[in-house]
Amino acid sequence: MLKISVITTKTNELTEVTSNIQKLIDEQKINNGICVVFCPHTTAGIIVNEAYDADVKDDIIFSMEKISPSYPDFKHLEGNSSAHVKASLIGNSSNLIVENGKIQLGRWQGIYFAEFDGPRKRELWVKILEII
Amino acid sequence: MLKISVITTKTNELTEVTSNIQKLIDEQKINNGICVVFCPHTTAGIIVNEAYDADVKDDIIFSMEKISPSYPDFKHLEGNSSAHVKASLIGNSSNLIVENGKIQLGRWQGIYFAEFDGPRKRELWVKILEII
Amino acid sequence: MLKISVITTKTNELTEVTSNIQKLIDEQKINNGICVVFCPHTTAGIIVNEAYDADVKDDIIFSMEKISPSYPDFKHLEGNSSAHVKASLIGNSSNLIVENGKIQLGRWQGIYFAEFDGPRKRELWVKILEII
Repeated sequence: MLKISVITTKTNELTEVTSNIQKLIDEQKINNGICVVFCPHTTAGIIVNEAYDADVKDDIIFSMEKISPSYPDFKHLEGNSSAHVKASLIGNSSNLIVENGKIQLGRWQGIYFAEFDGPRKRELWVKILEII
Repeated sequence: MLKISVITTKTNELTEVTSNIQKLIDEQKINNGICVVFCPHTTAGIIVNEAYDADVKDDIIFSMEKISPSYPDFKHLEGNSSAHVKASLIGNSSNLIVENGKIQLGRWQGIYFAEFDGPRKRELWVKILEII
Repeated sequence: MLKISVITTKTNELTEVTSNIQKLIDEQKINNGICVVFCPHTTAGIIVNEAYDADVKDDIIFSMEKISPSYPDFKHLEGNSSAHVKASLIGNSSNLIVENGKIQLGRWQGIYFAEFDGPRKRELWVKILEII
């Protein structure tokens, strides 16, 4: 598998990685296939969503905090259970279709590393299944 | 990749696409493999859930509105951030197992296009990895 | 495809299945590939998250109940719509990367069968795409 390095700078942050993944596909000269993206962290995930208006990222982060706040009843002593829940909701793997050497995305879509417990040094793992 | 056209008629709507995807597998004469379903939209997603009692669809839509309502604090001017959040939670890709020419689903499962900002003309993208 | 049997003992429960899936990969002598895990149930799903501190599991279950409680307005007469919603949020399929005969996971990650309407006798379906 291939790895992408992501440096996050805030507690909650969506970092676009579309061009990082496309670069791997270019380097591997993959024309046709499936690209599996896997987040090896337990307080972060992968979102494929709007890449045009950056305000959407802020609204997603705002809502995720409403959906999964930190509860006084939490047992996990590290204090970041809210981030584990957000990561479980968002999911840690995604499938991308590759054709003609390009990740196939809808007009407004981008691929995001979704940080919920930053800032941290993170990784995304990418495995490409080529169809010949 | 192959494409399925979906016409949605409400703001929030689960449209079953199980037979549409099975038809593609039939046409391609795929016996064994993995079928990746990818939603190219940013305010819609894919749900694999109950296909027997239609009331479950209504209850899912009802809950999604409670989970991700529209907040006055949202910044995205298009006014549909709630739908972007719902799509991020539900996810925009899914894996289906194909064996003996059939999508393998549990007894009560169906595959749904989950619209959160309709009515619209939508697409689902399908990429089949055949195992020979 | 291969099947894993899971017996759940509570209404909401995260059962780790990492070693069960690794065992299948060992038995099939898969060195390199992608492993698709598919949950054939409509009130359960798959979570890849913390496997070190068991308190995280409890906090995830606690939060899921806050996120998707049972509403008096629900129409589905079986009374478990809350579980259908939780399953839809968590998702019913996941991708795992296999290299050198081992599932590649982050340091703290484990794979969980997420039960939301137990106790029940459940299954996970596993399909392995080998890369040669």
